[in-house]
Amino acid sequence: RIKGERLQQRIAQLADVGAIDGGGCARLALSDEDKAGRDLVCDWMRELGLSLTVDAIGNVVGTRAGRVPGAAVMTGSHIDTVRTGGRYDGNLGVLAGLEVIASLNDAGIETERPLAVAFFTNEEGARFAPDMMGSLVFTGELALDEALQTQGIDGSTVAENLARIGYAGTAPTPAAAPHAFVELHVEQGPVLDREGTEIGVVESVQGISWTEIEILGTSNHAGTTPMSLRRDAGWAAGSIISFVRELAQEFGGDQVATVGRIEFFPNLVNVVPNRAVLTVDLRNTDEALLQRAESRLAAHLDALRDAEKVDINTRKLARFAPVPFAPEMTDRIERHALAQGLSTRRMPSGAGHDAQMMAPVCPTAMIFVPSVDGISHNVREYTHPQHIEAGANVLLAVLCELAGA
Amino acid sequence: RIKGERLQQRIAQLADVGAIDGGGCARLALSDEDKAGRDLVCDWMRELGLSLTVDAIGNVVGTRAGRVPGAAVMTGSHIDTVRTGGRYDGNLGVLAGLEVIASLNDAGIETERPLAVAFFTNEEGARFAPDMMGSLVFTGELALDEALQTQGIDGSTVAENLARIGYAGTAPTPAAAPHAFVELHVEQGPVLDREGTEIGVVESVQGISWTEIEILGTSNHAGTTPMSLRRDAGWAAGSIISFVRELAQEFGGDQVATVGRIEFFPNLVNVVPNRAVLTVDLRNTDEALLQRAESRLAAHLDALRDAEKVDINTRKLARFAPVPFAPEMTDRIERHALAQGLSTRRMPSGAGHDAQMMAPVCPTAMIFVPSVDGISHNVREYTHPQHIEAGANVLLAVLCELAGA
Ligand SMILES: NC(=O)NCCC(=O)O
Ligand SMILES: NC(=O)NCCC(=O)O
Repeated sequence: RIKGERLQQRIAQLADVGAIDGGGCARLALSDEDKAGRDLVCDWMRELGLSLTVDAIGNVVGTRAGRVPGAAVMTGSHIDTVRTGGRYDGNLGVLAGLEVIASLNDAGIETERPLAVAFFTNEEGARFAPDMMGSLVFTGELALDEALQTQGIDGSTVAENLARIGYAGTAPTPAAAPHAFVELHVEQGPVLDREGTEIGVVESVQGISWTEIEILGTSNHAGTTPMSLRRDAGWAAGSIISFVRELAQEFGGDQVATVGRIEFFPNLVNVVPNRAVLTVDLRNTDEALLQRAESRLAAHLDALRDAEKVDINTRKLARFAPVPFAPEMTDRIERHALAQGLSTRRMPSGAGHDAQMMAPVCPTAMIFVPSVDGISHNVREYTHPQHIEAGANVLLAVLCELAGA
Repeated sequence: RIKGERLQQRIAQLADVGAIDGGGCARLALSDEDKAGRDLVCDWMRELGLSLTVDAIGNVVGTRAGRVPGAAVMTGSHIDTVRTGGRYDGNLGVLAGLEVIASLNDAGIETERPLAVAFFTNEEGARFAPDMMGSLVFTGELALDEALQTQGIDGSTVAENLARIGYAGTAPTPAAAPHAFVELHVEQGPVLDREGTEIGVVESVQGISWTEIEILGTSNHAGTTPMSLRRDAGWAAGSIISFVRELAQEFGGDQVATVGRIEFFPNLVNVVPNRAVLTVDLRNTDEALLQRAESRLAAHLDALRDAEKVDINTRKLARFAPVPFAPEMTDRIERHALAQGLSTRRMPSGAGHDAQMMAPVCPTAMIFVPSVDGISHNVREYTHPQHIEAGANVLLAVLCELAGA
């Protein structure tokens, strides 16, 4: 069994890096704070005797040798955060992996297969789109060059920032597929907490569609320009915000829709905006419904072009169909959780995860633990220590079985 | 008569200061560009033999002595611009004033009363609210201290910036009232251009209501948070943008409504915003209707508080009731324009102007010249040279009559 307190200590120490008011973290991908977090986790990996590799997109893999060489059983997640991030999202999966290694070291247990703990670059996608960028390059789903050239919200590129923080490594991508991949993560949603279930057995990840929309109108005087003569990029942006909310309500089910980012130009009180840029995040577990939401949005943009005589450009920032996990892996997780006396629930994931990128290349699944009040991407993100410990113990059991302990 | 070419030259030279792509200017109030523009205009004032004063809010007045001392007949406007400003808005009124002085100097004409040309600080209100700040302090409508402490959109204060650019003067405020005030300005709206009228005789300025609205919600994960559990500050902001457009359409007439400025926090694609700040600019020529629009907006904010469980704080950035100009002044402008063979139209102003702040302290009116396509607060703002010359000649005649030439 793992040591809950040691794991909590590591979580707290990593949360000190880029700490912000309220107990959360701001470690946007490839920022100075991300570098400091990476350095700390790499130190821990070395202390635990893992051998480290860093690839060209900055993914770090720490490997513990097995009795026989070959593909490793891998766990891990990410340590980048959003600007108002909590201390568990991603970090838990990486640090629970290290705790599994520490526990095996303590007990002097060797495994047949190698065991690896990875943290992937820019899972959040908050600074550079798409999200899950590191795992996409790791599995070959995204070309390295394209990823490296991606411009972030501040205009700088992934390549520049990798070089700046010293994490442009040399391990080849795509990497050889692991034997299996298991990721422990906080749910980030309200389901487990609400019904008092201890372990979520994640069967799938819902589809994600991110679109950046640029609207070009005409700047004009807010006092003198009759409403009928406006080409108001700001109003068009507002109408999109209202539209996607109505769309989500109309679709119902688990359809969600969010406008998280917006900018107006010239962004002054008495000037009709001539340019607005905003993002739309649409998600659904059902690919057909997600496609229908996308085409409804496209139709709304067409209507806006006509009604307001604005130009509208769109750019796909991310697009992932729903991903099912391997039944043999979800069964395995459920079996170990139940054997440990824990309550379980099979469920989809609302958030994107590195595991969803690993799923096509190796048997993959995820373990969820409850998030209090379903709060995430918020400094108040919280998971009770007993749930963290329970999740890490399920991870330990599943990894040991997969690796042959 | 004035020299149209000399006036055009000054307009072009001033437009070179803070020039931006497309022929416009970015000289936000008290910026380095504003300082450079001020220095140029002050040089011109001195060359023309005017004696200069600068007051504590940075208003500059250049005075040409009359045969008898006493209150000056004043003209002027502003030289600050919005970030996507044209070259005529404000600048024309100041430079036409200098052209009147130059023409009188050329002709060796003395006036009974002194003649003064002023440019007032921060008329635009784009960086520091309220707009017309300099003329408000000049007439005593706004306390100097309050104005000096105002924080701009970049967080710095009026006082800091006045000191930095060296325009914190010593002339007392409120200043003694001028004998009369006349301001030449481009219409900035479409009315004169559309009907081919050369001179607008401005009878009033419509009411202006600027509100900054801050919405506080809960940041949360865009993928995992069901729509029903959100406290989405961004969605609330979008609903306000949609609401004020519908309000303007419902009110009809000359009601206008604009959301020109917005910011989301943390402003990331996959985070439900926990804070949004936006501005609403409402205007109407009818004070009762403007008040009704304000209370409808307030009711919408109350509904949002209930529906989305967000907190909402509002701050009045500017509030001016409609201002009528003195009939003896509008009659005078109309008479001189007609005598010069120009077509005229009586009309309200859609934009706010320094003249509206002078109106309570001395007989005041404004002369409008057409804006092509009604475009303003846009680099494409344009007024034909013959209209500029016509407006400046009406200004010359009106000032000469008022000052006793
Ligand atoms: N786990 C997580 O928060 N991932 C970020 C990517 C997304 O789902 O928006
Ligand atoms: N004339 C002018 O553009 N004034 C700016 C103040 C306003 O009306 O918004």
